[in-house]
Amino acid sequence: MTSRNCTEITFPVRYAETDAMGVVYHSNYIIWFEVGRGDYMRQKGWEYADLEARGYYLPVSELEARFLTPARYGDLATVKTWLDELRSRKIAFAYEVVKEGTGEVLAVGHTKHVCTDKMGHVRSIPREVRDMLSAEVS
Amino acid sequence: MTSRNCTEITFPVRYAETDAMGVVYHSNYIIWFEVGRGDYMRQKGWEYADLEARGYYLPVSELEARFLTPARYGDLATVKTWLDELRSRKIAFAYEVVKEGTGEVLAVGHTKHVCTDKMGHVRSIPREVRDMLSAEVS
Amino acid sequence: MTSRNCTEITFPVRYAETDAMGVVYHSNYIIWFEVGRGDYMRQKGWEYADLEARGYYLPVSELEARFLTPARYGDLATVKTWLDELRSRKIAFAYEVVKEGTGEVLAVGHTKHVCTDKMGHVRSIPREVRDMLSAEVS
Amino acid sequence: MTSRNCTEITFPVRYAETDAMGVVYHSNYIIWFEVGRGDYMRQKGWEYADLEARGYYLPVSELEARFLTPARYGDLATVKTWLDELRSRKIAFAYEVVKEGTGEVLAVGHTKHVCTDKMGHVRSIPREVRDMLSAEVS
Repeated sequence: MTSRNCTEITFPVRYAETDAMGVVYHSNYIIWFEVGRGDYMRQKGWEYADLEARGYYLPVSELEARFLTPARYGDLATVKTWLDELRSRKIAFAYEVVKEGTGEVLAVGHTKHVCTDKMGHVRSIPREVRDMLSAEVS
Repeated sequence: MTSRNCTEITFPVRYAETDAMGVVYHSNYIIWFEVGRGDYMRQKGWEYADLEARGYYLPVSELEARFLTPARYGDLATVKTWLDELRSRKIAFAYEVVKEGTGEVLAVGHTKHVCTDKMGHVRSIPREVRDMLSAEVS
Repeated sequence: MTSRNCTEITFPVRYAETDAMGVVYHSNYIIWFEVGRGDYMRQKGWEYADLEARGYYLPVSELEARFLTPARYGDLATVKTWLDELRSRKIAFAYEVVKEGTGEVLAVGHTKHVCTDKMGHVRSIPREVRDMLSAEVS
Repeated sequence: MTSRNCTEITFPVRYAETDAMGVVYHSNYIIWFEVGRGDYMRQKGWEYADLEARGYYLPVSELEARFLTPARYGDLATVKTWLDELRSRKIAFAYEVVKEGTGEVLAVGHTKHVCTDKMGHVRSIPREVRDMLSAEVS
């Protein structure tokens, strides 16, 4: 599932992210996907913050996630992120979250994004970003 | 989409739920689904907290969401929740989040749950809960 | 402690707000203070969202909280909010969170705010807001 | 302020942590304090998760924070943590959050903790933890 050109970022589970079942509350994986995505962009040579500074936004239009094994406080989580789809005005990422050390898969997911301007109007993803990423999905 | 026996709960958007785009950050809708689900159970006659006190848990095994219109601080959000599927050991809910007042659909989604015990082992959903809900999916 | 002109808002604890100790994670009370504060403003006749639309912001400059009794999923929390201090460019609120039904005090706290513009420069709180609130602290 | 034996942990600001003012929402600093505290314990030779596994808990009884400069998405935050007080049944930590690179102080704060068992009854902090830490506050 992660044979593609994925990036990896590892961080400790926060106590704030756990819930009364003693495990990480499910919506936090969606935030971890965002951490993975931001890191992916950074590693590929663009900062999402810079994109916004230039007036481009990539809000999430759709997401899905499956939860396989619960993470707990004390665990380190690694988010693997890769590009799933790249079009002129859309981009999609895929994620696999594993438990550092054991490699157990904790969760998998996808997010779809539409490129917009500050007002929410659809725009084309800047060409240099597309050029930079096109090699990733060939 | 909400012709089924849905419940509704309304609450103000929290500033904490907004992000630097000026709108509600996407993972918060997943938490709103949980608010809707807890309220659904309560309105149908069972408290999820009681279920846990008896040793039954309904962790989320899968979720998906689509984001249609951004919500903002100052908005009231209404979560409509209905039962999507009921099996002996699984249950699924569907959600529609609308902006109170205008009725605009902000987001839609589904969550799937497996009934487990405290240890995470799969169990049958207690019969009285299934009996209470079976009329909802006929 | 709540003899002043306080407002009250009640909502169910979210499962997302609990942690692995089985109780509400402490930083969520800070968000509940915000919910109380927004509701206070609304009940006193001004919407914080409108204030921002006019270019005024009230970022938190300081906060403190004491946690007395843990809240749990299944509880209803009531936030009592009152004005603690009102100056030309500063405002402070105080909070008491109680468990609905029993009245047990769960947490107490204060937040201090400085009025700024969008750029973060200090400004005077609009006169009509101060006039509206001056009766509350006399 | 950080002349003591402090530990440091650095991580990128999450988009989820920003709010409609375009900066990190204040309650997230409280979670960052927790990240700093967990890391402090780890670096000093004990895992908080292990402490809980042995039946000891350190819930936050009190906290305070001051917010000096806003953090933004794209920033790296460094949390400096040090021991502020150590008693037989209480422990307190202090924090300074700085922006990586510039060293600008974003926020400072303190948390106080009481050692309890699972039921919430006050207990003494295990001797070996106190011994390990006593050198830090001499």
